[in-house]
Amino acid sequence: MVKIGVVGGGQLARMMIPASINLGVDIAVFSEVDGSSAKLATSHVGDYTNLDELSEFSADVDVLTFDHEHVPLALLNALIGCGVNVSPPPSALALVQNKVVMRRALAAMGLPQPRWAEITTESELLSAVTSIGGFPCIAKLPVGGYDGKGVREVTGVGDLTDWLTEGPVLLEEKVAFRRELSQVGARNAAGNWVAWPVVETRQAHGVCSEVIAPAPGLLAAQIESAEAIGRQVAERAGVIGVLAVELFEDAEGRLLVNELAMRPHNSGHVFTELSVTSQFEQHLRAVLNMRLGSTALIAETGIMVNLFGGVDADLSAKAWANYPEAKIHSYQKQPRSGRKAGHVVVVGSAWAELLETGIAVRDILSERDYDD
Amino acid sequence: MVKIGVVGGGQLARMMIPASINLGVDIAVFSEVDGSSAKLATSHVGDYTNLDELSEFSADVDVLTFDHEHVPLALLNALIGCGVNVSPPPSALALVQNKVVMRRALAAMGLPQPRWAEITTESELLSAVTSIGGFPCIAKLPVGGYDGKGVREVTGVGDLTDWLTEGPVLLEEKVAFRRELSQVGARNAAGNWVAWPVVETRQAHGVCSEVIAPAPGLLAAQIESAEAIGRQVAERAGVIGVLAVELFEDAEGRLLVNELAMRPHNSGHVFTELSVTSQFEQHLRAVLNMRLGSTALIAETGIMVNLFGGVDADLSAKAWANYPEAKIHSYQKQPRSGRKAGHVVVVGSAWAELLETGIAVRDILSERDYDD
Repeated sequence: MVKIGVVGGGQLARMMIPASINLGVDIAVFSEVDGSSAKLATSHVGDYTNLDELSEFSADVDVLTFDHEHVPLALLNALIGCGVNVSPPPSALALVQNKVVMRRALAAMGLPQPRWAEITTESELLSAVTSIGGFPCIAKLPVGGYDGKGVREVTGVGDLTDWLTEGPVLLEEKVAFRRELSQVGARNAAGNWVAWPVVETRQAHGVCSEVIAPAPGLLAAQIESAEAIGRQVAERAGVIGVLAVELFEDAEGRLLVNELAMRPHNSGHVFTELSVTSQFEQHLRAVLNMRLGSTALIAETGIMVNLFGGVDADLSAKAWANYPEAKIHSYQKQPRSGRKAGHVVVVGSAWAELLETGIAVRDILSERDYDD
Repeated sequence: MVKIGVVGGGQLARMMIPASINLGVDIAVFSEVDGSSAKLATSHVGDYTNLDELSEFSADVDVLTFDHEHVPLALLNALIGCGVNVSPPPSALALVQNKVVMRRALAAMGLPQPRWAEITTESELLSAVTSIGGFPCIAKLPVGGYDGKGVREVTGVGDLTDWLTEGPVLLEEKVAFRRELSQVGARNAAGNWVAWPVVETRQAHGVCSEVIAPAPGLLAAQIESAEAIGRQVAERAGVIGVLAVELFEDAEGRLLVNELAMRPHNSGHVFTELSVTSQFEQHLRAVLNMRLGSTALIAETGIMVNLFGGVDADLSAKAWANYPEAKIHSYQKQPRSGRKAGHVVVVGSAWAELLETGIAVRDILSERDYDD
């Protein structure tokens, strides 16, 4: 039997379970906590920074892959030394573990991105700001940020005093973007690459809130450009698995790389219902070096709306009563204010209406508060 | 947390797992063997005719449901006596545990079915045959038959000598049917009923081989009739969960009930890709008395082709290379000649082409023999 090992027990690992069922492969999850979102497939609860635990977990898997990008590269290299097949490989994961490494790599690939600089002192900040277009600009912690955490708008030299005492900071031009897009695709070990259509992502408070697929109103040249950027990142970085490239569309319609993820990504959830192959199945196929699945769409368009806090059963029933076409996914997480607790997908033919439906469903599910 | 318990570890229990993931409910499976098709959710391996084991398994589930109809009714009634919520209820399951009970119940409901008689001796056989239209007719063991087993064509009085020594036999008119259909739907505890479109099922050697959804060329009156039959069986028998009604379409276009199943059914697999709600999700929603999901179709039409023997990974890759639109499901069963090992679904707009694709995929997967 073919067996996949997944480090991390979040909703991404959770949603790999149906994919493993469809494909007929075994799946085991290394969770940090008991009762995680991926508990059904959890075979080990422990610390992913402990080499012995990782080693034991990996002993009988055909490939080790990830729900998140936090496993230290040194440990992954040690596992590879012991014969574990790690996908994506540490050399690729390096780009998503450190945003400065990513910026440097994208620059070396000649791909369009916001102007940026790495700074370690306040005096470097001043000269760097000039080179990237002045205040306000964006500062990011190179390591560990997500969903708006570790990101700060900088308007003056004193804004980073606290961060700079702890290490280097990535400074980026504040792009006057028209909207945000995401190009999700996958590459397998044989080097094949497939991509889904580019989607539009809408953020609220730094967190993905809604996705429209395909992104409405893109020019053919933009679609080509997004696909080419995805392909180049995947090939040049040697990605194996799903790759999401978050993009800014600037005022002139140019695409600039904002962030990367080397795993199924929130912006790709819509394809579970909208495409022949979900990103979760595609990720498993890619890391197992199976033939990649068709990314053709089943319906004309689809939308995804994130649910925050919790997914109450009675409110789901109320939402279904009004919007039976809505697919409500719950991640079975402990409810907590603001937490990504699930998502809604609606597919059909007119994205604006579908989005209205998705947001109406979220409004109903938001009738219950999950304040701490 | 809401928790479903499923007795039986076959592919039907297996395919309830993705549904439980999407809905955000816990699932536990009572399997007969280690390493069953539903092993990922298996929490108990044992004997489903043992009340103590069933009791212990049921202790913490919100509802107990089934992958098959073989748990003795007396045990289910005992479980109910201990406070277990059993769905579908034993009073409904009685109809699928014994084909004579089913025929009698359908007759009481006034629903169309082949002429039939229950016989216990060879002399009863002779008079019964006259009343149902003469030889050849069909004999069925009332209990335990499936996929063509326990079914026999009878052409003379000596054909049932062996069976009659063991108990009563159900004799049925041999219907000169044009084709076979299946009406799949679901009813929840609140009494709501939803149905998917009627499908056409094609058999080979007594086993379902292909499904076309919706069944091509049906008249509106036939569609209404099938839906009404499904609804009446569900309501009159008090079904809670998915109900499949297998139908003959006779030479005059009349629909006659052939068989019933009170669980997700092979003829409904196509709806996982073709409909907003899969029959597996619907079954869980129904037995949990959640609001039933939309049975609207996502594409115009779809087909399902069963795979027998085994699902070889290399041959799957070969099939995908030629037919990327095919969704190949593997049940992770030990390969064995003739065994249902998986299925293929293709959705689109022209059923004949889709069916060609599905059969071509099966042909590729059949290049490997699984002779014992």
